[in-house]
Amino acid sequence: MNKPDIKYLFEPDSVAVIGVSQEPGKIGYKVMENMLYTGYTGKIYPVNPKGGQALGYDILKSIEDVEGDVDVAVIAIPARFVYDAVVSCSKKNVKMLAIISSGFSEIGNLEEEQRVLNYAKAHNMRVLGPNIFGHYSSKVNLNATFGPRDINKGNVAIITQSGALGIAMIGKTAVQNIGLSSIISVGNKTDINEADLLEYLIEQEETKIILMYVEGIQEGERLVEVLKRATKAKPVIVIKSGRSKRGAVAAASHTGSLAGSDKVFDAIMKQCGVLRAESIQEALEWSKFLSHTSVPQGPNGIIITNGGGVGVMATDACEKYDIKLYDDQEKLRETFESVAHGFGSTKNPVDITGEASKADYVKALKEALVDDSIHCVMALYCETAMMNSQELTEMIDEMYGQYHAAGKPITFSVFGGELTESAITALHKKNVPVYRDVYDGVSCMGAVQTIRKIQNATPTEYVTADIDTDAINKIIDQALGDDRTFLLAEEGQGLLNAAQLTGPRGGVVQSVESAVALADDIGYPVVMKVVSRDILHKSDAGGVLLDLDNQEEVIDGYQTIIHSCKSNVPDAVIDGIEVVEQITAGTEVILGARRDANFGTTLMFGLGGIYVEVMKDVAFRAVPLSQNEIRSMIKEIRSYPLLLGVRGEARKDIESIISALEKVAVLISLVPRITDIEINPMVVYEQGTGARAVDIRVLLSDDKEDSPS
Amino acid sequence: MNKPDIKYLFEPDSVAVIGVSQEPGKIGYKVMENMLYTGYTGKIYPVNPKGGQALGYDILKSIEDVEGDVDVAVIAIPARFVYDAVVSCSKKNVKMLAIISSGFSEIGNLEEEQRVLNYAKAHNMRVLGPNIFGHYSSKVNLNATFGPRDINKGNVAIITQSGALGIAMIGKTAVQNIGLSSIISVGNKTDINEADLLEYLIEQEETKIILMYVEGIQEGERLVEVLKRATKAKPVIVIKSGRSKRGAVAAASHTGSLAGSDKVFDAIMKQCGVLRAESIQEALEWSKFLSHTSVPQGPNGIIITNGGGVGVMATDACEKYDIKLYDDQEKLRETFESVAHGFGSTKNPVDITGEASKADYVKALKEALVDDSIHCVMALYCETAMMNSQELTEMIDEMYGQYHAAGKPITFSVFGGELTESAITALHKKNVPVYRDVYDGVSCMGAVQTIRKIQNATPTEYVTADIDTDAINKIIDQALGDDRTFLLAEEGQGLLNAAQLTGPRGGVVQSVESAVALADDIGYPVVMKVVSRDILHKSDAGGVLLDLDNQEEVIDGYQTIIHSCKSNVPDAVIDGIEVVEQITAGTEVILGARRDANFGTTLMFGLGGIYVEVMKDVAFRAVPLSQNEIRSMIKEIRSYPLLLGVRGEARKDIESIISALEKVAVLISLVPRITDIEINPMVVYEQGTGARAVDIRVLLSDDKEDSPS
Repeated sequence: MNKPDIKYLFEPDSVAVIGVSQEPGKIGYKVMENMLYTGYTGKIYPVNPKGGQALGYDILKSIEDVEGDVDVAVIAIPARFVYDAVVSCSKKNVKMLAIISSGFSEIGNLEEEQRVLNYAKAHNMRVLGPNIFGHYSSKVNLNATFGPRDINKGNVAIITQSGALGIAMIGKTAVQNIGLSSIISVGNKTDINEADLLEYLIEQEETKIILMYVEGIQEGERLVEVLKRATKAKPVIVIKSGRSKRGAVAAASHTGSLAGSDKVFDAIMKQCGVLRAESIQEALEWSKFLSHTSVPQGPNGIIITNGGGVGVMATDACEKYDIKLYDDQEKLRETFESVAHGFGSTKNPVDITGEASKADYVKALKEALVDDSIHCVMALYCETAMMNSQELTEMIDEMYGQYHAAGKPITFSVFGGELTESAITALHKKNVPVYRDVYDGVSCMGAVQTIRKIQNATPTEYVTADIDTDAINKIIDQALGDDRTFLLAEEGQGLLNAAQLTGPRGGVVQSVESAVALADDIGYPVVMKVVSRDILHKSDAGGVLLDLDNQEEVIDGYQTIIHSCKSNVPDAVIDGIEVVEQITAGTEVILGARRDANFGTTLMFGLGGIYVEVMKDVAFRAVPLSQNEIRSMIKEIRSYPLLLGVRGEARKDIESIISALEKVAVLISLVPRITDIEINPMVVYEQGTGARAVDIRVLLSDDKEDSPS
Repeated sequence: MNKPDIKYLFEPDSVAVIGVSQEPGKIGYKVMENMLYTGYTGKIYPVNPKGGQALGYDILKSIEDVEGDVDVAVIAIPARFVYDAVVSCSKKNVKMLAIISSGFSEIGNLEEEQRVLNYAKAHNMRVLGPNIFGHYSSKVNLNATFGPRDINKGNVAIITQSGALGIAMIGKTAVQNIGLSSIISVGNKTDINEADLLEYLIEQEETKIILMYVEGIQEGERLVEVLKRATKAKPVIVIKSGRSKRGAVAAASHTGSLAGSDKVFDAIMKQCGVLRAESIQEALEWSKFLSHTSVPQGPNGIIITNGGGVGVMATDACEKYDIKLYDDQEKLRETFESVAHGFGSTKNPVDITGEASKADYVKALKEALVDDSIHCVMALYCETAMMNSQELTEMIDEMYGQYHAAGKPITFSVFGGELTESAITALHKKNVPVYRDVYDGVSCMGAVQTIRKIQNATPTEYVTADIDTDAINKIIDQALGDDRTFLLAEEGQGLLNAAQLTGPRGGVVQSVESAVALADDIGYPVVMKVVSRDILHKSDAGGVLLDLDNQEEVIDGYQTIIHSCKSNVPDAVIDGIEVVEQITAGTEVILGARRDANFGTTLMFGLGGIYVEVMKDVAFRAVPLSQNEIRSMIKEIRSYPLLLGVRGEARKDIESIISALEKVAVLISLVPRITDIEINPMVVYEQGTGARAVDIRVLLSDDKEDSPS
């Protein structure tokens, strides 16, 4: 049986509200009142065992009294009664349970939450919440929340893990003239989570922008996959609290979901094409701007200003928000020389000076509008006596209108007193992007430029690798059979081989002649080690020799090892002698991969030793990923120049690192029983001469019973 | 003759305005109009060669027609007439010239600016500008600007390098209800700069907060000294644009002053106790908050919230703005258990839940108010149905009043719709610190906590060192005498010795016996080198031997060197053999000092090689400085753990680094002809076993004719 479609949550034909009392002020009553106020287009069934009347409706004593089926049941009764209500819901083929009630996992009552969930799952119902303020969907005018009744209709969908913040955002968006297509409180996320909702919102026409407030994530692997699809379709903005260590602890204590490492979260969001806002204010500004503007045709930005100081600040802000400033001096002079007269400048920032009038602004902005090599414009204005409030308002309004019509993004940052303030107020009402600080305007432009890059990115082709999973699964079976959740050194070596990851070259021989032949083949120096299950401490038994530089030393060495081992462990059965390439010094790197209950599978890369341990110089990406993403993660570390070669050293074999990371990523994807892989160190040599995985650590899960297919 | 006191700029008895025409709209007319409007308390003399009348005054044909002296002459005439006007001013003992006129160094006309300045200096007049919009001083109701006539009187002094921004800030501060004690446009800073103005403002009673907008600095050494005094007296906030590389270029093109390295600027401002704001908005928010709040009694902050989500965000923000969150769980429970009922939390953030009413907020905030271990409070509110707009306004107003009276800082961050918005509007009018975003409120609290630390810091005692400046000056005389502005290796060694900086130990000997004795004394291994002015390439001549491990090798080595050199360079006069300690491996660090025309003298520290070159892991401080400042700069680098010892290594001799940095700092201060010192590498050994300055590079200036005293 398929799970019911999330669509029913947003577009139900009928909604039962369980817990509608006759008393105004109670949550159930408020939900019902909101639904009526917004003019919900479907059928409404108020339910309360006490019966009676509310808001002109007869209250049903049980949902079972409804004739026919019910799509959504909103449950607003004490936690201890929820289970029974859910049981009743199953009788009416309810598809969605929106459980407003608190008192579940958020206060440690995991058992009851699980009991409700299990029943719902077994009876093919999906659960939103518990511990939510409800949900709103503009498509059917459904305000099934106990929040404000006035919700501004529009094209921004909000998904929020915090109830209090969600309710406040309804009011806040109305004040800021931001329209909502929906707002959904996910609460404890016992069943329906962000990924489920995104799946629906990707397709929903009413939604142009998705804004999420997240404290902790679950089902990371799926979320990443859905987010990647979502960001190709429409901008997704996320506010994640718990950035700081202490904040992460606070988030965990307040929602019961693990906040996880912020650095990993940040890397994954970037990889998914999600815009991450620091504050609610920033997220709302981005939402508003993106919901009205077009995506620019290219990267080139230009700053037009009547004051040098704010021009410099906007330049700083462009660096912060990664906006490319158009830099063709000759072209700029040509375009702007007629407007940057006197003490002005045609360089970018284009300074049209404090003498600039409305006409000068219009002229300069029109030049920028018709110039196809300019893709976005940040206009700045410091209040002068050259424009009164009305002229300022008209200039901005007209110019915004022309830019908007032409599909070229523009922002205005204006500084000044009452006159400027009244222009701002008038323009905000018309949704013109006018800001009180340079950074705010540039931040919004940075957001739309990022959206351009995301939407224009070439489709991702995930890396593949030829990996002998059968061999690996045999190794894992053996380890788990021994009650170990980690691999031994030889097993790790076996895994490297199965993944075609290059470790030190070598083999096991049974004669001096073969030892010499193998050593010749490997190249000197080599290491020799005794192979015997009877000798545990090889070095102590004289069974290991390093630095063997030529045939003679190999011949001597072979005999020395046999001799030492026989005299130190007389009864030992010697299976042979291992002859292995001796790893010479090179650049040490660390490659890691990890399967995490929250974030899903992630790949890690850094330079070895101090760079990772002390400098915390590491990069993360979600798996699966493309070769370009692997390249970008290598370039992201601060110590990347060391791989390119500094101080006269040659470039290192970066291609070998890429290839190894590909194999590690594919390996962990294909073998679900592996939770952690760390190759540390891998020694990388000069370009074209490869790399060697010297040591590997592998952790296993005994939970996953997935056996090799 | 002493320069006239800056006080005359702020408190003149008389002001002449040169360039007042009869036409309204002209700059001189506007300045005069503003002066009359504000009700300037002194005498006003309008001047224009054409004469006539303006604003009820007879226009004088020349300033020389004034009876008696004039304190300030505001000059607003075309650049080409300025010099003659300045000449006239000298006849009336004018003390301050405020030159509004543009057309000087900012457009490359350095010569005329210098001519005016030279004349003014020679006639004991000081110059503000040129290229300014004027200045305002509340003390005498003087608005000698061509900006807005309405200026909000208060306790914030603004110094601005950007004219357009300055004018806009007059209006902006009025809108935000921030009062000004003065606003001064410094323009090209040909004479009067920030340091001059700060000297006056430190003492001025009317000014409680100083806000500076800076593009480039000059006279760094003096500015640092004055800033240190200023920040002990009152908060100083700086906005410096040109953070980014491109921004720095834009700043330079627009003011003609070098923007310099932002990292160095940032370090120096922090050291001076200056608050650096990123944006104008942030600077204004800080100014407003600091001008009304008391400095907290201690570090402990507490967050009180009715929503978990915003609580977590505030926690993140506290980390960003370096606010310590009070953490005594037991004490917190005791204080707040009566208010954090139900699903709330007494942990910090204290969560009084969405059920919190006005009474609950009042109760919680009163508990925090009377608790002496809580030093500042950040209250958060998400709009709920539990408080209407009036209750919210009353609650915040009352609580702010009580906190204000008790001298305990508090901020309120509130989220919501129209009801919350109207509360904010009402409260802003009363200067209550209410914010629309968590980050804004926490940022302000961070500012006042920083001020507490600055004002409570123990007085700085600058490091001293015993340095033989005579010896160093002799070395420099010789180098400059040879037309070199750098020191040779041996000279560098001499400088290290004169500063008692430990280089490799050693000396020059003339016999095998002395060589052995010296080597024994140094400890093995040693290096031996021929000393001969006839042998330039010592290694080529066989004059250098490394790794001499014992007496025998020293004896052999001595003879080998003599023999090789005699046969390779037969006519060479050999002065002796240098026997030097061979530097063994250790941790390499770099110590640097630099005298810079803008920033003054700065000290630099970082770990050697890749850490500085690739990772850019360096710290800067202004000189002079205290030992604590040296310690903090060492701790500031990301690679600091390497000095503490990682991966089982011992702690390095950090005391030796401190001592060497002290010597370098004192050395560059005492010897003005040195512009750059770089010790690279200095090899540091384990704690207690010292460090060795292996190589030193010294650059000299031949400009400074300061000879040794």
